[in-house]
Amino acid sequence: MSACELCSQDGGLLVFRRAEFRVIRAADAHFPAFYRVIWNEHVAEWTDLPPAERSLCMQAVAAVETVLREALHPTKINLASLGNVVPHLHWHVIARFGWDSHFPQPVWGEAQRSVAPPAAARLVLPLADLDARVAAALAGLAGH
Amino acid sequence: MSACELCSQDGGLLVFRRAEFRVIRAADAHFPAFYRVIWNEHVAEWTDLPPAERSLCMQAVAAVETVLREALHPTKINLASLGNVVPHLHWHVIARFGWDSHFPQPVWGEAQRSVAPPAAARLVLPLADLDARVAAALAGLAGH
Repeated sequence: MSACELCSQDGGLLVFRRAEFRVIRAADAHFPAFYRVIWNEHVAEWTDLPPAERSLCMQAVAAVETVLREALHPTKINLASLGNVVPHLHWHVIARFGWDSHFPQPVWGEAQRSVAPPAAARLVLPLADLDARVAAALAGLAGH
Repeated sequence: MSACELCSQDGGLLVFRRAEFRVIRAADAHFPAFYRVIWNEHVAEWTDLPPAERSLCMQAVAAVETVLREALHPTKINLASLGNVVPHLHWHVIARFGWDSHFPQPVWGEAQRSVAPPAAARLVLPLADLDARVAAALAGLAGH
C-alpha cells in the first residue's frame, strides 16, 4: 500500500482549516479559481461519512461555490468528487469561463485553445483576495 | 438562445421521477452504471437552489451512490455537476471499476484500454435489477 497523497501533502495553498475539513486552492495555471474541500479524516467515498458530516461537507462546497459566483461571475461552476487516483474524499470546486483553455470541456478533457494573457490575470480580483473571501465564508459556517 | 437539451429530452432511460427531480440511467457502453440526478426546474447551478432543495438533491445523489456501492462494490464512485455544455442542474453518479475503459482517468479523459467482454456484462447484476434498486432507494427518501 502506498501512502495517501492527501494525507501527506495537499498540492496547493491552504486557505482554511477546521476540525472536519480543510480547503486549499490548487496550483493550476489553466484554472486559477480552483479550490478543493478536503475531508480531514481519511475516507474514500462521500457516503462513507454519516449524514450530518456529509451535509457539513456540502455546506463547505456550497460556501466556496457561492463566493466564486459572487466574486467572479463565472460562466459555470464545476463540482466533482472523483478520487480515482487519490481515494481520499475531496471535492473540486472550479470556476469556469467561456474563455478558459478547456471550456466547455471538463478540466480533465482536451484543451480547446491557448489563453493569453494568463488566466489568473483575467480574474476581476487578485487570488489572495479571493482566498480571503473563501476563508471568511467558511469561517461563517455553523459549528465553527 | 437554443432550447435546453435536458428540458426536452434526457438522453437516457427514466428510472425514477418525483416533483423535484428525476433520475435517468445514461446510455453509455463504457460506463453502464452511470446515473444522472436531473433537477426538474431549469436552474443552472446547484447553489441556485435554496438550501432545503439543495439538500434534497444531494440526498438523491447519496441514495444512488449507496445503491451502486452496495450492489456493485465498485473501485470508486465518481460524482460531478458540470453542465458546461448543458447548463441545467444535473449530477452524474458513476460506478467506476479498475478494469473500465478509462480508469483511473475521469470518464471525460482519455481511454486507457479496450474492454471485452463489454462492460455491462461484467456487472454482478443485470442493469434492470440495478435500476429497480435505485428506484426503490429514491422512493424511500423523505417527502415522497
